[in-house]
Amino acid sequence: MSIKEALHWRYAAKKMNGNKVPQELVDQIVEAARLAPTSYGIQPLKVIVVTNDELKEKIKALAYGQSQITDCSHLLIFAAWDNYTEENVSEVFKRTNAERGLPENNNADYFDNVVKTLAGKTPEESFLHTAKQAYLAFGVAITEAATLKVDATPMEGFDAGKLDELLDLKSHGLKSTTLLPLGYRDEAGDWLANLKKVRTPTEDFVIELK
Amino acid sequence: MSIKEALHWRYAAKKMNGNKVPQELVDQIVEAARLAPTSYGIQPLKVIVVTNDELKEKIKALAYGQSQITDCSHLLIFAAWDNYTEENVSEVFKRTNAERGLPENNNADYFDNVVKTLAGKTPEESFLHTAKQAYLAFGVAITEAATLKVDATPMEGFDAGKLDELLDLKSHGLKSTTLLPLGYRDEAGDWLANLKKVRTPTEDFVIELK
Repeated sequence: MSIKEALHWRYAAKKMNGNKVPQELVDQIVEAARLAPTSYGIQPLKVIVVTNDELKEKIKALAYGQSQITDCSHLLIFAAWDNYTEENVSEVFKRTNAERGLPENNNADYFDNVVKTLAGKTPEESFLHTAKQAYLAFGVAITEAATLKVDATPMEGFDAGKLDELLDLKSHGLKSTTLLPLGYRDEAGDWLANLKKVRTPTEDFVIELK
Repeated sequence: MSIKEALHWRYAAKKMNGNKVPQELVDQIVEAARLAPTSYGIQPLKVIVVTNDELKEKIKALAYGQSQITDCSHLLIFAAWDNYTEENVSEVFKRTNAERGLPENNNADYFDNVVKTLAGKTPEESFLHTAKQAYLAFGVAITEAATLKVDATPMEGFDAGKLDELLDLKSHGLKSTTLLPLGYRDEAGDWLANLKKVRTPTEDFVIELK
């Protein structure tokens, strides 16, 4: 299925049927997020995969009781670094040189400069930036899910502060940004399933400067 | 090509060869962004497609002289609404009902609530939210470009304030968020073209809560 067809097929399922998504497909969706580009290649995010039923119930309570959180197969949580530090940024560049078989000090001036720029941000500024990278990866994962015909409902409507506490994300240096329940639509029970997809018309979406 | 293969094939080309991308492929990439999901389906963004050479030169000067901006075929600028207002949010819901053949007051209580929530944000808060939606669509577009074997270099390194002025984006109610030059890699001239892609290992990228 082409991406265009997949994006027409997908919608934000409001009701899921509880069927399990094969682990292999979940892994492919997470892998797409892992391969997504990010600023300087730093990947300041992680994906948390929740299958524990009790935990899903607790998370649903922090998300206006949205039923997909418990009726999904796997709940993905996109969480971004809560801060850039000299340590966490340098670590990435060290790994980059090591994996490329380059000396540890390869490109050192450039890398030092990036480390300084990013580690110089406050935690608030850092998270504004890391969260955007998480949204980019979120978009890539949503696209992959659609091509695999796995329903995925992008969600921002939850109490991020309480979710971070529940999962003790602070100890991982993370803050939650978005949720993505993966599962299968309950077409008969979902009021949204058969409504037309509406998008801004192309002529209003695009500005051409020729 | 699968998305996984496409994401392995892609990289942030540092040098492009000036060849033109067929308009049909550019349209497909923009269409993917247009079909991307956004908060409440509001799509608070537009894609600006720049092919004018003089304008590309001026934009390059605001982006540390990065050569892809002039050597690309089409420069996409992802721009997000600079504010949510009662007007621009209501407009979307009106169109949604109209396109679905539903009465204008269908779902009015829910829509009114969303309008109030979003229009209640300050311009700064609005843009924090609209920019994230733009990043999500950016991720979708990057994925589509890769499956079409079109090189696309995600860029945040530019003076957004000056670019907004240059293009008078304020008059459109927009602010620029990211750039995406589309073109073809100059493999011989690009130092990054043949370096190994490095990503966080899966075991460090994923947290499983079973």
